[in-house]
Amino acid sequence: MTRTEPAGTALGDEFHLYDTTLRDGAQREGISYSVTDKLAVARLLDELGVGFIEGGWPGALPKDTEFFAKAAGELSLKHAVLVAFGATRKAGTSAEKDAQVRALLDSQAPAVTLVAKSDLRHIERALKVEVAEACEMVRDTVEFLVREGRRVFVDLEHFFDGYAVSPDTALRVADAAAGAGADVVVLCDTNGGQLPLGLAETVREVKDRTGFRLGIHCQDDTSCAVANSIAAVQAGATHVQCTANGYGERAGNADLFAVTGNLVTKLGMEVLPTGNAAELTRVSHALAEIANIAPYAHQAYVGASAFAHKAGLHASAIKVDPLLYNHIDPPSVGNDMRVLVTEMAGRASLELKGRELGVDLAGRPEALTSAVRKVKRLEAEGWSFEAADASLELLLRREAGEAFDEPPFVLESYRVVLDHRADGEIVSEATVKVHVGGQRVIATAEGNGPVHALDAALREALTPHLSWLDSVELADYKVRILPGHPGTDAVTRVLVETTDGSREWTTVGVHGNIVEASWLALCDALVHKSLRLTT
Amino acid sequence: MTRTEPAGTALGDEFHLYDTTLRDGAQREGISYSVTDKLAVARLLDELGVGFIEGGWPGALPKDTEFFAKAAGELSLKHAVLVAFGATRKAGTSAEKDAQVRALLDSQAPAVTLVAKSDLRHIERALKVEVAEACEMVRDTVEFLVREGRRVFVDLEHFFDGYAVSPDTALRVADAAAGAGADVVVLCDTNGGQLPLGLAETVREVKDRTGFRLGIHCQDDTSCAVANSIAAVQAGATHVQCTANGYGERAGNADLFAVTGNLVTKLGMEVLPTGNAAELTRVSHALAEIANIAPYAHQAYVGASAFAHKAGLHASAIKVDPLLYNHIDPPSVGNDMRVLVTEMAGRASLELKGRELGVDLAGRPEALTSAVRKVKRLEAEGWSFEAADASLELLLRREAGEAFDEPPFVLESYRVVLDHRADGEIVSEATVKVHVGGQRVIATAEGNGPVHALDAALREALTPHLSWLDSVELADYKVRILPGHPGTDAVTRVLVETTDGSREWTTVGVHGNIVEASWLALCDALVHKSLRLTT
Repeated sequence: MTRTEPAGTALGDEFHLYDTTLRDGAQREGISYSVTDKLAVARLLDELGVGFIEGGWPGALPKDTEFFAKAAGELSLKHAVLVAFGATRKAGTSAEKDAQVRALLDSQAPAVTLVAKSDLRHIERALKVEVAEACEMVRDTVEFLVREGRRVFVDLEHFFDGYAVSPDTALRVADAAAGAGADVVVLCDTNGGQLPLGLAETVREVKDRTGFRLGIHCQDDTSCAVANSIAAVQAGATHVQCTANGYGERAGNADLFAVTGNLVTKLGMEVLPTGNAAELTRVSHALAEIANIAPYAHQAYVGASAFAHKAGLHASAIKVDPLLYNHIDPPSVGNDMRVLVTEMAGRASLELKGRELGVDLAGRPEALTSAVRKVKRLEAEGWSFEAADASLELLLRREAGEAFDEPPFVLESYRVVLDHRADGEIVSEATVKVHVGGQRVIATAEGNGPVHALDAALREALTPHLSWLDSVELADYKVRILPGHPGTDAVTRVLVETTDGSREWTTVGVHGNIVEASWLALCDALVHKSLRLTT
Repeated sequence: MTRTEPAGTALGDEFHLYDTTLRDGAQREGISYSVTDKLAVARLLDELGVGFIEGGWPGALPKDTEFFAKAAGELSLKHAVLVAFGATRKAGTSAEKDAQVRALLDSQAPAVTLVAKSDLRHIERALKVEVAEACEMVRDTVEFLVREGRRVFVDLEHFFDGYAVSPDTALRVADAAAGAGADVVVLCDTNGGQLPLGLAETVREVKDRTGFRLGIHCQDDTSCAVANSIAAVQAGATHVQCTANGYGERAGNADLFAVTGNLVTKLGMEVLPTGNAAELTRVSHALAEIANIAPYAHQAYVGASAFAHKAGLHASAIKVDPLLYNHIDPPSVGNDMRVLVTEMAGRASLELKGRELGVDLAGRPEALTSAVRKVKRLEAEGWSFEAADASLELLLRREAGEAFDEPPFVLESYRVVLDHRADGEIVSEATVKVHVGGQRVIATAEGNGPVHALDAALREALTPHLSWLDSVELADYKVRILPGHPGTDAVTRVLVETTDGSREWTTVGVHGNIVEASWLALCDALVHKSLRLTT
């Protein structure tokens, strides 16, 4: 394999949007990608249009070796170049003979990122070699891989800390990398301790002193990984390493979606294929799904709440011009403006909210008045619709007089029995009597607790009659006890998140009795699903 | 009330660490602080040592009006100055006659932060007045409040967006504020669209052009709120507004803990009383508890994973010198390098906590070892003793082998029946069988819900035998559903606060079944009370 020109992206080679979710992102506590997961992640990142996908560390992690083997056969990437990550050769051998370096070649990835120590203290105390040998390890390994036709990037670990202590050492290692043919020298804030103004100064200085093509890799230990990455680009870096949703060790890495959002919408850089920024939100959520981590609602650009306005102060003004109250147009990153309904809000936000949920209240001032009154009354009783769009939609449709067809089922009664027996065993059992499909059905089930038992009994009763129920399941369940107003008892607010595999919706129930509150939310969840089946 | 000197902090007035968790933080979806919650938040922030605590918007939100009324009587702050937030007077009236401005005076807060529009587009399209009138609204309101003895800060809403469009307008409003006696002109990135390099440039320019004392208020829509706040301080701002854990609307605000961590450990600024940075982690977690939001494990500085290392690459090297792999020394912010970080699980802190609770563990290393082991195990199962001192005390006493006298009662069994009847009536009924005062007692009672019924039945059974029970009542009850670890079911954590009229204590129970979790916490509450009767 001989390299004729650099493996570049479809967008050209001037700027590298480089993702390391599959390697550095996988360091996050709790993430454990299977090979199938890794392939799915790579496909999504490629769809989005990133330039480089670092797939793992072949030769060091068996799963990563397997991933590259499968990728070579199965993965056809439209935009991205696949990258293998690894260390430079060990001290006292040659790159050619180093098994781990050979594993990088065997991975068949067209590009390789090598990690190298550039902090004098790490070279002396962790690597335990002279600086000259450390440089030789870099030079030898880069030269070998370039000779073998690979495009090579070098991650200079702990660069910023090292540059502060011994700039000469850090620059000697950088020089060894670039001199041997590495295309990009990546300055890494491995411990994540940098702040943007200082980091930008260092990047500019290194750029001025060396003229090398520079990359940036930031960790989020000061909560500045995104800011540092952007500052580095403004200071001359043209290769930026990120992970999906900022996954990574400790506080994580620079979030690919926030970095991309900033590059595209703030700096006007075309780092994704035209139109693909609108995929940011979808891809972020899909990658969270694969990592089995709940999407973070307050994530910049792509979070479910990223454009959700609560303050009454703003809601009335938002109608004047939404762009006065959003830093960007939400659909440009595939997101949406949600208006939260709360005690702080009024007519304007409820009308907006209706529009968002597909219920037109603008032309029906009386329905709007009565909906506002009802929401206010319910919120005074402890209901909260701000996180329960599905329940709010049902309420608004009822107020707007939009007739429902037959409700999917009608409750006659339920009973839940909780036993803490003398032998210490604890049992929860529920019986429901419901009318569904023209029949009266009685069903009993056990569960871990009262709500679980009730949900199980309801499913037992309904599943034979409602075929869609099979795909519907409870995704999350939240409880909050609300202190009573003076003279009243406390009430319980339950939020239920339900999913049918393709969509998630949230409903709310409030009652003095936690089981009844849960029942109300569970029922709304099923009614909302059946509404979506018929509309 | 006449002001003689500025209401400043114990640390002096050169720098303001200003917290707005109770006002801007409360805009976060899902947060709904009670007045009691607000008082608890203010106390924790004051313990930490912030300079200013913005308590809410009296006159606009009834709960906030009530908070200030209670604070005036009950809240004695060691470090912080309490601040009321509000708008400038309405157009076409005078500050003196404006009811909402008067509500700021009535709050009795010694400092007031006024929000004012400084973006020409917002003045014209949302406020719908001339710039001259907008300035007059600011001038009049500031002058009035200063005359009434208040220290006044002015938040210039949308300052950065406004300055980009019409710098003259933005500066005219700033000038009106400072000219009328506002001590700090706070530049707000209300839509959160700024990046640090540009923002720092603007702050420096405004500082140079006006010489005013400047503050900064950042939102996190570009994921740069912390970075922007720090950059602003480096550019000359001496007043920085944050919220606990970054709570706030949309993507949130600048996180108080990351901002403080950066100011203290990176810029060497003494923005907290000496030694108090070590309280950052504890206070962050306690505030999350009050907001009923799970702490974010990957939060910079204070997250449970903030110093947790997973990478094999690092793990071996960490032994050489941990500081080579951490950007700061974790205990300096009250955090820890272990993967499972809890407040209590360390020997030293548990020993200290024991001393605080009156349990001497210092001379009993084996009891301490076994207590540490037990707390770790329970916390891994979802127990949290941070907010449940009474349960922790019972645990420590048991581990220390301090013999209890006879337990006040022993459970044989309980049964709870919840009926949603066909006529719509909902009934909760509990029966307990307990042994108390040498007798076996069976009692049944009804309640609003399962826990209430169980509590009622227990009282019914015990009151004839335990005379002190009459004065004991449930003061607060909190529930959190904790997601299961892989392969396990979710568990429920219940916190019960109990009072006997002179003292309050909190106990915790954790179980897959919410009623059993409640039972565990209820029982601990009564055992703890009986212990106090005999010690």
